[in-house]
Amino acid sequence: MSLETNRTRRSFAMHEAVAILSRTPATLDAQLRGLPDGWVQAHEGGQTWSPFDVVGHLIHGEQTDWIPRARMILEEGESRPFEKFDRFAQFDASRNRTLASLLDEFAALRGENLRQLAALHLTEADLDRRGRHPELGVVTMRQLLATWVAHDLDHLTQISRVLARQYSDEVGPWRAYLRIISGSQG
Amino acid sequence: MSLETNRTRRSFAMHEAVAILSRTPATLDAQLRGLPDGWVQAHEGGQTWSPFDVVGHLIHGEQTDWIPRARMILEEGESRPFEKFDRFAQFDASRNRTLASLLDEFAALRGENLRQLAALHLTEADLDRRGRHPELGVVTMRQLLATWVAHDLDHLTQISRVLARQYSDEVGPWRAYLRIISGSQG
Repeated sequence: MSLETNRTRRSFAMHEAVAILSRTPATLDAQLRGLPDGWVQAHEGGQTWSPFDVVGHLIHGEQTDWIPRARMILEEGESRPFEKFDRFAQFDASRNRTLASLLDEFAALRGENLRQLAALHLTEADLDRRGRHPELGVVTMRQLLATWVAHDLDHLTQISRVLARQYSDEVGPWRAYLRIISGSQG
Repeated sequence: MSLETNRTRRSFAMHEAVAILSRTPATLDAQLRGLPDGWVQAHEGGQTWSPFDVVGHLIHGEQTDWIPRARMILEEGESRPFEKFDRFAQFDASRNRTLASLLDEFAALRGENLRQLAALHLTEADLDRRGRHPELGVVTMRQLLATWVAHDLDHLTQISRVLARQYSDEVGPWRAYLRIISGSQG
């Protein structure tokens, strides 16, 4: 038996994080642009979010969360906590917008933020620099940037899950095989 | 209080199913093509699948599952069960392939299968026609096609989940907020 490389965890590497972050706008665009409106506005009941809501949330993150917090770590360290992130800002901000315009805005903001990230020329030592989250306490630049990546992927998962569950009844007996509908983790 | 339209379930509609099915190749392409190999080969431990494995699995579905089964429903009805689907075929079939070539093949097969689906000119009555699944028993054409859609979305969810979990440690205290890592359903 040979020792296999660990395929379940990766260490943070800036070029890999950027590879994923830079792909999110086109991924969302390919999946959602032009989709019938009933799917774009679909959700999982109650106060859960639709794909439309998620894109608005991602826009708000580009505007107020990731790069502004990275700058705060560099400029203020642990001395002042980050601004709290408003998880509901998109409900007002996206009102009367089209999905197409939200996708365009997200792509533009993400591109600009990745240019700003590159311009910071962060070193390995910078990745260890610390800031203060208003609820989670001390966090590092590396953790902030890894979370930016995982947060994108979390919401991509959410979008496909919301869409899949629209057919929870229509799939009939196949429901048992579809983990996203049956709820079992696979 | 007004009655809100149900946003948690949709009835099967052919043009909507095709809208989703036709977007999957470009969605996978945008997310995965050119991603560093460590991410393409990442998995969740044990016998779980990587993004590379998932694309191979989707290819095998195009070759042996969806359209062949639709034809069996039309030609044989409930008289003969579908061929069993091999959930592990991709491990041999994808060996020594590049992700780029798998993405190309999947896109070509999906395009051809959607052309074949259109050429079947299925009516509403056809969607009620029945076939026999080797394990699940009697199923309808509508259920088969809805499952094709949900199956795509299930695996898109899987890919983003596998990628996100690679940073389970790197996100530090933010782990608590990332449902895809913490494991809570949101």
